[in-house]
Amino acid sequence: MPWHVYLSGEIHSDWRLRIANAILDEDLDVELSAPVTNHANSDGGGVAILGEQPSDYWRDHVGAGLNAIRTRTLIEQSDVVVVRFGDEYKQWNAAFDAGYAAALGKPLITLHPEQHDHALKEVDRAALAVAREPEQIVDVLRYVLNGKLPKRR
Amino acid sequence: MPWHVYLSGEIHSDWRLRIANAILDEDLDVELSAPVTNHANSDGGGVAILGEQPSDYWRDHVGAGLNAIRTRTLIEQSDVVVVRFGDEYKQWNAAFDAGYAAALGKPLITLHPEQHDHALKEVDRAALAVAREPEQIVDVLRYVLNGKLPKRR
Amino acid sequence: MPWHVYLSGEIHSDWRLRIANAILDEDLDVELSAPVTNHANSDGGGVAILGEQPSDYWRDHVGAGLNAIRTRTLIEQSDVVVVRFGDEYKQWNAAFDAGYAAALGKPLITLHPEQHDHALKEVDRAALAVAREPEQIVDVLRYVLNGKLPKRR
Amino acid sequence: MPWHVYLSGEIHSDWRLRIANAILDEDLDVELSAPVTNHANSDGGGVAILGEQPSDYWRDHVGAGLNAIRTRTLIEQSDVVVVRFGDEYKQWNAAFDAGYAAALGKPLITLHPEQHDHALKEVDRAALAVAREPEQIVDVLRYVLNGKLPKRR
Amino acid sequence: MPWHVYLSGEIHSDWRLRIANAILDEDLDVELSAPVTNHANSDGGGVAILGEQPSDYWRDHVGAGLNAIRTRTLIEQSDVVVVRFGDEYKQWNAAFDAGYAAALGKPLITLHPEQHDHALKEVDRAALAVAREPEQIVDVLRYVLNGKLPKRR
Amino acid sequence: MPWHVYLSGEIHSDWRLRIANAILDEDLDVELSAPVTNHANSDGGGVAILGEQPSDYWRDHVGAGLNAIRTRTLIEQSDVVVVRFGDEYKQWNAAFDAGYAAALGKPLITLHPEQHDHALKEVDRAALAVAREPEQIVDVLRYVLNGKLPKRR
Amino acid sequence: MPWHVYLSGEIHSDWRLRIANAILDEDLDVELSAPVTNHANSDGGGVAILGEQPSDYWRDHVGAGLNAIRTRTLIEQSDVVVVRFGDEYKQWNAAFDAGYAAALGKPLITLHPEQHDHALKEVDRAALAVAREPEQIVDVLRYVLNGKLPKRR
Amino acid sequence: MPWHVYLSGEIHSDWRLRIANAILDEDLDVELSAPVTNHANSDGGGVAILGEQPSDYWRDHVGAGLNAIRTRTLIEQSDVVVVRFGDEYKQWNAAFDAGYAAALGKPLITLHPEQHDHALKEVDRAALAVAREPEQIVDVLRYVLNGKLPKRR
Repeated sequence: MPWHVYLSGEIHSDWRLRIANAILDEDLDVELSAPVTNHANSDGGGVAILGEQPSDYWRDHVGAGLNAIRTRTLIEQSDVVVVRFGDEYKQWNAAFDAGYAAALGKPLITLHPEQHDHALKEVDRAALAVAREPEQIVDVLRYVLNGKLPKRR
Repeated sequence: MPWHVYLSGEIHSDWRLRIANAILDEDLDVELSAPVTNHANSDGGGVAILGEQPSDYWRDHVGAGLNAIRTRTLIEQSDVVVVRFGDEYKQWNAAFDAGYAAALGKPLITLHPEQHDHALKEVDRAALAVAREPEQIVDVLRYVLNGKLPKRR
Repeated sequence: MPWHVYLSGEIHSDWRLRIANAILDEDLDVELSAPVTNHANSDGGGVAILGEQPSDYWRDHVGAGLNAIRTRTLIEQSDVVVVRFGDEYKQWNAAFDAGYAAALGKPLITLHPEQHDHALKEVDRAALAVAREPEQIVDVLRYVLNGKLPKRR
Repeated sequence: MPWHVYLSGEIHSDWRLRIANAILDEDLDVELSAPVTNHANSDGGGVAILGEQPSDYWRDHVGAGLNAIRTRTLIEQSDVVVVRFGDEYKQWNAAFDAGYAAALGKPLITLHPEQHDHALKEVDRAALAVAREPEQIVDVLRYVLNGKLPKRR
Repeated sequence: MPWHVYLSGEIHSDWRLRIANAILDEDLDVELSAPVTNHANSDGGGVAILGEQPSDYWRDHVGAGLNAIRTRTLIEQSDVVVVRFGDEYKQWNAAFDAGYAAALGKPLITLHPEQHDHALKEVDRAALAVAREPEQIVDVLRYVLNGKLPKRR
Repeated sequence: MPWHVYLSGEIHSDWRLRIANAILDEDLDVELSAPVTNHANSDGGGVAILGEQPSDYWRDHVGAGLNAIRTRTLIEQSDVVVVRFGDEYKQWNAAFDAGYAAALGKPLITLHPEQHDHALKEVDRAALAVAREPEQIVDVLRYVLNGKLPKRR
Repeated sequence: MPWHVYLSGEIHSDWRLRIANAILDEDLDVELSAPVTNHANSDGGGVAILGEQPSDYWRDHVGAGLNAIRTRTLIEQSDVVVVRFGDEYKQWNAAFDAGYAAALGKPLITLHPEQHDHALKEVDRAALAVAREPEQIVDVLRYVLNGKLPKRR
Repeated sequence: MPWHVYLSGEIHSDWRLRIANAILDEDLDVELSAPVTNHANSDGGGVAILGEQPSDYWRDHVGAGLNAIRTRTLIEQSDVVVVRFGDEYKQWNAAFDAGYAAALGKPLITLHPEQHDHALKEVDRAALAVAREPEQIVDVLRYVLNGKLPKRR
């Protein structure tokens, strides 16, 4: 039975790809999932499917509804939730996902640079691991699945 | 892992078929389920299986019991619940299913013409998407599974 | 510890008042709650509090959001949920409440005239009692609290 | 039975006080709770109580542990959760609380200026009301408790 | 905060009274509840309140519905469930209550003569104590509340 | 996805075999499970595996522990629970299973002769169908899976 | 509403008394509870109430059953669970309580000398605070209730 | 559908291997899982993956975090949890796992020598079977899966 790992958060860097490639290379028994990472589609899906809306607020509202169908379903189905905070943007939906996963009792791993440590202290406290690089996420998954430590880098 | 989508509500139009055909055409990873849509069987199943009853009220009661075995089990197993309100009938069981799904935390999508908007406002408020045409349900499922927007119509 | 009983559904007749008066008269250990029963306020509360909206649909949406805060909280807190279906209107929110309560495992009592029996069969099947008159609701509450039967009428 | 309302988020403006005073003035049956709003105590409580730590990261970690005891307990006990996003700071713990409350099924109200609308769209989509001013929170509570609309301002 | 103890099962002997009197004498902080113990009312309540039915089966059905409103609500509210099996009758509803309470995680105590030991082995295995006399139930409650052992008899 | 159906209760007649054969004949997508139906093994398993015990009571206790591992796991995994009450014995564990399944929200079907109707009224009230013959269980399963009614007998 | 705090673990030192006295002195809004701390009663309660047993193993078994009624009920009712590990004994029931509380999502605080740090690392990881002295428990409770830091010692 | 059995506790003897070999030999439909049983990796994984820490306490803390990701996920996924207490060490994490599993309602089996009976009485009371030898675990699994008793030894 593969482990389902949901990768929440930042969509403007290649962190998911680096994790996915490593998992493929090592043939780890992990299935990854994620939010819609095409920014234009993620913002515009609601209007494109459900029709034009009379204001930006309601455009965002119908778009966020569709994203919630995907996000909540995948978080519920996941065994582990990884949340990435990048250098930019407010990223409140990433923190929201972290809270949502924590309340469901899902093991939580955060991934962010040290500069965010103080601002993320409550989120990190709810996590079972705090990583700095995507490769550490792979290290954690390899360890929790197979008990193996990474070769010294 | 396919998504399980339960299609609740109206049984007198071809909306389920239109969704099913589109899902088949596009090979979306979705498994559909539904209540018993043969109206005569749905009304008469209880008496046909469990025996004649002394009044219409109890005939309906044993029939509704069998339908509940199917309905509740499939709603519990589903990832997404779609509820269709058509032009006619009271359709209270559709609204009941919507409330049942909402309380279980299942993502809910409603499908109905605009004329019902005011009467359905509480149900729609609990939904993550409100669609007008069956094809929009397929658009939503394509988007939440694959992140793709519909081609412009 | 009083029993909390939520009275959902029809807001255009005096059925809640008849129940409330009887409970007061008999000093039953019951606390009643209900949705906002002032129709104008119930429809207009969202806009009055959160501001004007660009369409009827979104006016209803913000109004229904406020009503959901009240409704869901009171249903969660209740020991028994009574749902009244009157002669008129679609009353889909009443059926929605019934489904919501059923999924939470709340004991459900429906109250409606016989003419709705067939259309409500799925809702009634989920109920533990089906009553025709508000006075029967009081009879049920007196019985489940104190074990006493009504005096013959 | 009073309603328990948890006020999460921004601690550098007087929004909680404005809500508390209005609730007191109107004698609404509401009990408010909040995180520790003394910033120095909130950051320094862990070290002051559990002892000095070898790095800022672990100082924050023990402090966040104490805050989580308070925060999670109060959110679990609350009937409604209000989350305020102010003009400054990352405020990821506010978004975390919103996700936590949403996953527990608590009715959620957000309070923030329009400038954050797009960044907060996923959080707002999970809310049942989005307010701009603290007084609107009081208006919402008055309405959901008593069904009364605010006097025209 | 008093402990709520539900006394399920046999209604044809004075076991509940013996427990209630001892609790009163000792002023233990316990609130007792029970099903309707007037046999005629318990069997006839449904028909008396909801109207005559066309067969014994449906008479029992409406009566059992009312009893379930009381029974399930009180079991849900209880901290401890005691189930008494007497010498006579099938007492399947007592065993049903035991299973219901066990699935909810309620601490279960059974009370029955040794002659039923083999037939009740699955029920007893789910219990945290098996008593023979009502006075032992009081002994158990005194101990779990106050840590005191009974005076030697 | 097959439906998992747990067949609880009487172990001294061929009712499970009649259901299993019909399901096999019709190729219904159902997986059946049951308690250990070898009476000697069911009573003696505890002592045979965990060692001799100093009294009949504790022999039964260790045996019932093993049976509970099987029973609870299979009931938790099942979509539908069928409980059979035969002509003889106390069958309290069958009623216990029914209560356990009901509290978990599993759709419940009872199967028993009319002579037990009054004694089983509380159990039957919690069921969604009451059958008299094993063949009706197959009819119910065929209907809830495929919507088909039995050919007239 | 007072906070309910369960004090699990070591029963051979005065740590509970030190906490209770400080809470009384400061008039903190906390209600404490604990297992039966009279060692002789805790070990002998089962036999004293439910009768002599044929072996030490079954004597312990009936005694532990009574203790479980108290322990599980109080842990379920508590807002915070404190678990104390002293210098001696195996104290496996303390670790069991910690796991039980953690799985229920109760905020957990451990209290133990540094010498146990390595052996308790999994338990401490599930805790939101690790204290060394009973007075720190009072400091934590004062802080999470009132936001106040201890005066410098 | 195979049964998932989690083997918690002692990592310094061959008890898991003896169970795994027997299950393989008999082709029982069981999937086993376990914590990381390489002691060095289990202690050192946190630092090896997440980086050096400033003290033994925090080294243990990050290591225990990774172990918790594995342990909690596997316990949640398991149908049965077996907890082994060996002759040595404090083994508090084993007792913690037992409490965690018990609170989740997982059937629990303990495995330990008689010398620990008194110290483990609370843990054993929460278990459905107490075994002395690994082979008895296989006997239990064979029985609960297939209803077969072990051949006389």
